[in-house]
Amino acid sequence: MAWSPRHSAGRRLQLPLLCLLLQGATAILFAVFVRYNRETDAALWHWGNHSNADNEFYFRYPSFQDVHAMIFVGFGFLMVFLQRYGFGSVGFTFLLAAFALQWSTLIQGFFHSFRGGYILVGMESMINADFCAGAVLISFGAVLGKTGPVQLLLMALLEVVLFGLNEFVLLSLLEVSLDGDGVRTPPPQVKDAGGSMTIHTFGAYFGLILSRVLYRPQLEKSKHRQGSVYHSDLFAMIGTIFLWIFWPSFNSAPTALGDGQHRTALNTYYSLTASTLSTFALSALVGGDGRLDMPILESKLKVQDTCGVHNLHGMPGVLGALLGGLVAGLATREAYGDGLESVFPLIAEGQRSATSQAMHQLFGLFVTLTFASVGGGLGGLLLRLPILDSPPDSQCYEDQIYWEVPGEHEHLAQGSEETETQA
Amino acid sequence: MAWSPRHSAGRRLQLPLLCLLLQGATAILFAVFVRYNRETDAALWHWGNHSNADNEFYFRYPSFQDVHAMIFVGFGFLMVFLQRYGFGSVGFTFLLAAFALQWSTLIQGFFHSFRGGYILVGMESMINADFCAGAVLISFGAVLGKTGPVQLLLMALLEVVLFGLNEFVLLSLLEVSLDGDGVRTPPPQVKDAGGSMTIHTFGAYFGLILSRVLYRPQLEKSKHRQGSVYHSDLFAMIGTIFLWIFWPSFNSAPTALGDGQHRTALNTYYSLTASTLSTFALSALVGGDGRLDMPILESKLKVQDTCGVHNLHGMPGVLGALLGGLVAGLATREAYGDGLESVFPLIAEGQRSATSQAMHQLFGLFVTLTFASVGGGLGGLLLRLPILDSPPDSQCYEDQIYWEVPGEHEHLAQGSEETETQA
Amino acid sequence: MAWSPRHSAGRRLQLPLLCLLLQGATAILFAVFVRYNRETDAALWHWGNHSNADNEFYFRYPSFQDVHAMIFVGFGFLMVFLQRYGFGSVGFTFLLAAFALQWSTLIQGFFHSFRGGYILVGMESMINADFCAGAVLISFGAVLGKTGPVQLLLMALLEVVLFGLNEFVLLSLLEVSLDGDGVRTPPPQVKDAGGSMTIHTFGAYFGLILSRVLYRPQLEKSKHRQGSVYHSDLFAMIGTIFLWIFWPSFNSAPTALGDGQHRTALNTYYSLTASTLSTFALSALVGGDGRLDMPILESKLKVQDTCGVHNLHGMPGVLGALLGGLVAGLATREAYGDGLESVFPLIAEGQRSATSQAMHQLFGLFVTLTFASVGGGLGGLLLRLPILDSPPDSQCYEDQIYWEVPGEHEHLAQGSEETETQA
Repeated sequence: MAWSPRHSAGRRLQLPLLCLLLQGATAILFAVFVRYNRETDAALWHWGNHSNADNEFYFRYPSFQDVHAMIFVGFGFLMVFLQRYGFGSVGFTFLLAAFALQWSTLIQGFFHSFRGGYILVGMESMINADFCAGAVLISFGAVLGKTGPVQLLLMALLEVVLFGLNEFVLLSLLEVSLDGDGVRTPPPQVKDAGGSMTIHTFGAYFGLILSRVLYRPQLEKSKHRQGSVYHSDLFAMIGTIFLWIFWPSFNSAPTALGDGQHRTALNTYYSLTASTLSTFALSALVGGDGRLDMPILESKLKVQDTCGVHNLHGMPGVLGALLGGLVAGLATREAYGDGLESVFPLIAEGQRSATSQAMHQLFGLFVTLTFASVGGGLGGLLLRLPILDSPPDSQCYEDQIYWEVPGEHEHLAQGSEETETQA
Repeated sequence: MAWSPRHSAGRRLQLPLLCLLLQGATAILFAVFVRYNRETDAALWHWGNHSNADNEFYFRYPSFQDVHAMIFVGFGFLMVFLQRYGFGSVGFTFLLAAFALQWSTLIQGFFHSFRGGYILVGMESMINADFCAGAVLISFGAVLGKTGPVQLLLMALLEVVLFGLNEFVLLSLLEVSLDGDGVRTPPPQVKDAGGSMTIHTFGAYFGLILSRVLYRPQLEKSKHRQGSVYHSDLFAMIGTIFLWIFWPSFNSAPTALGDGQHRTALNTYYSLTASTLSTFALSALVGGDGRLDMPILESKLKVQDTCGVHNLHGMPGVLGALLGGLVAGLATREAYGDGLESVFPLIAEGQRSATSQAMHQLFGLFVTLTFASVGGGLGGLLLRLPILDSPPDSQCYEDQIYWEVPGEHEHLAQGSEETETQA
Repeated sequence: MAWSPRHSAGRRLQLPLLCLLLQGATAILFAVFVRYNRETDAALWHWGNHSNADNEFYFRYPSFQDVHAMIFVGFGFLMVFLQRYGFGSVGFTFLLAAFALQWSTLIQGFFHSFRGGYILVGMESMINADFCAGAVLISFGAVLGKTGPVQLLLMALLEVVLFGLNEFVLLSLLEVSLDGDGVRTPPPQVKDAGGSMTIHTFGAYFGLILSRVLYRPQLEKSKHRQGSVYHSDLFAMIGTIFLWIFWPSFNSAPTALGDGQHRTALNTYYSLTASTLSTFALSALVGGDGRLDMPILESKLKVQDTCGVHNLHGMPGVLGALLGGLVAGLATREAYGDGLESVFPLIAEGQRSATSQAMHQLFGLFVTLTFASVGGGLGGLLLRLPILDSPPDSQCYEDQIYWEVPGEHEHLAQGSEETETQA
């Protein structure tokens, strides 16, 4: 039915109109509300001798570029493992990320840097927008191949808003006390190391719940396309490597400049090497006859959770959040020295006990899971609206339905005929 | 005829001899004329407390590496979409860029940092050389698959000289006033934001005019090879992504250190996200039945303009230049504040009215188009010299003529026979 | 025989147990011995005006990330040219590098930053660990496709120790005089520019001697898999490009901050461009009929030296070391000015004549070759232990023996049957 001529014309217009509408609205909101922040705008920076505060752009820009490369190369190519969905994986990654970067600048800016009627942007807002795009792409991984671009854009529209709201609640939970100078934010009420909660847990469960609402019992019709082929796996390894090598930047980019950032990069670097050996051990143990399995290394295929985001982001995110709570409960000035100031400032300043901080951490996880579940459920209902163009069961995990695939016009024509016969 | 034994021996020697000649000449010129500039050579930099001027290397190096990655990964893989020309696209990109980097260091250095009989090089000359290589690769895109490596090297030899000359005329147009300290260059007479004129407009029209002079009515013989295949398009997407993610560095790298560079990176970042949504909208509107078309996203194939450089660089470059003229005509101190100094220094210093600056901008575009057209025409005539080895019509867009292609020796042998039969 | 049921069960457990054992041991050693160094740990870094010494992390991090990308993307994809060994090339690169990074942090740390009972780590130890991983991957290139993961891990275990020992002997040869403050190391007794000796010469000859000890007369059974296919060569070009573009960072990363680092990056940049033209000239001269050959560009296939590491690293490393000796013998204060202090500090301080420095350089090469040969020989004997799982001659250069290859289960089953029949 979705393929009747009337709907076909609708499909043809849905995507361009939605893109233009979203882009137009975003452009207007940028023009009205967005201004450069102090470091970006003012003629603060002068050639010559001056303080590190003025160098912030130069100290943050390399990490930002690494994060940017992770989001686009890493996520884009990680999802290329599906044998017939390479264009969709990379192309929709681009579309979703490009929209999420703009939209989250507005949403996060509204929550975090809204001063005197304007949203102030700079290096930090660019990094934060990339993090939000990361969460959207994690959710994309859960519905990869089963949703059309219009559905994906609507998912991003909703998810970015909830991401910003959740982050705001976690950072300023219970005691909101913004100061007015527009530069320093107050100490976070909940510490979210590496984005365990706001990025990984939120992105994964938002996507999974949404995917569950979109459950399709007949999806095995497309099952043969869920596999990978030799070269598509090699492309996916490009994605894996980019995610791996730039992870230290991903974790350290949002940290305050200084030794904390250095430590974060170092710890991530050694943690990754250790987890690589463990992954090989596990993969060889679990694998059929001691052989190593790239799906295990990169992503476990499960029906309805295309990229296995539950294993990759959901469980690790929750685990990270629980560990964060434990660490907070054990935090003492003896262990951290002056560093306590930058890790758990509220404990350092005596405003909160370690136990209280641990409770806040756990409550933060609860809030995140609530936002993700309710949001994902609402998102799923929204995406089930019959007016939206959803790929038929037999055409999932298939580029031809949304992309001109080179040299296969006859193949395509044949495929469409089959589809129409089925409908 | 081009395949007779005599010419075949000639072909065999043309490329190595030209490479050795160019490399030998470049090496001698480097030895005689090139010296480190002040920051690179002097023991200026000492561990400890000192000014940002001494940190220039560290502030510029990350952007430089991004530009370098764009030129090689981005341009190299962007052109891999041709199904049988992957080696040529990446390999000749390497050859051309490697030559252009050295040759433009000499040419640009002669125009911009020639002091006391020596060309002074450092971080800035490396970045500028990469920009010139970018223009050469844009031109390469217009003749991709239809020219041999000897022709391409001669094209680069001519183009780099004209690029340097054009840039020099634009920057110091009419009022040349170099100061002698070898560090600061005088304010540019024409502002060329993002290289609209010197890189995109010049590179595109130089290549297009040259391609027109090389027009081959029989080229449809190779038409079946102009298409892409599924995996070659995925490789091209690697190129696209690298161009996309590092564009903020490309635009901000040549800017003066400080808030201007920060702003440029920020603006490029948001412009790219906005243009991505617009591109999807347009592509879905224009495409046959609402599907998205990678050639539209990456490159439009047009006979004789292999990579569609007119759409990708020519038109946008001219548009950017015209907008630059408009912006200059409207520049006031009210809008820019102290930033006017760094954007339009001659207006800020009262040496020139906004209208006069706008006239200079438009005249700069005219000069660029003239250099590109006359140069491209001369280049085309040069490349038509019968002594130069040009691929026959039936062997265009085909790696086998210049590269050992793995596992296809029998195929090749067959191909050569056919060719000789035709000749 | 290696494929009897008993050994098959052994094979199944060897890899996971070795991974867990190595990772467990490394984790314990890290917990006991490794601590943050001064810049990483102390609350030294404060927002505001302070000296460049405190900025070291920000000045070194971008180069470090480039080196990291070279090691993983560069080496990993460079070796993908084998048509049926893409998973093994990238996967085992990951495994080896991840282990080498941790293990060499311990070994190098023990030799170079062992203070007060602790190994101090920071930015420099991360860069040095990546260099050691580079040497291990060079050796991997010599035995690629002919060794299993268990053998490779044992090779890395031995090689990292010898790498650290060799480096220590070279840097502090004969006159060991460590000072106690844990920050500055004494002037190196042997100057190893670009890692010619410690990385390239050592890694290449260690791997080659080891490969010779593992010599298999029947290896031509797998010869048909040693070739490349069109797309595998394109993947290998990704590796080549990443090695190429980030080489300036590789050479300049370990240099002292300042103008020396700037100069090193600049020299590497121009040397690479010059060598590219020369390579094209040579390739076109040597190639069958004037065509260019990617194996020549990237790697020459030679039986038993899969990636041609002798040509790529061995000979150039020795040549570089000999040139280093020559340059040292000719070093005068006239030529270097104050820079002599940072290049050859012992000559500058008058503690050693130029001739004596040259002798030290040559002796350093001799020591390196001895360590590599004896170590490679011992390593080869170790890897020939019959208990270790080595791929049978007919299954070399083949992913299926160690990896789940998508969509080829029937093919695999067939292959196993054949193998067992042969055994």
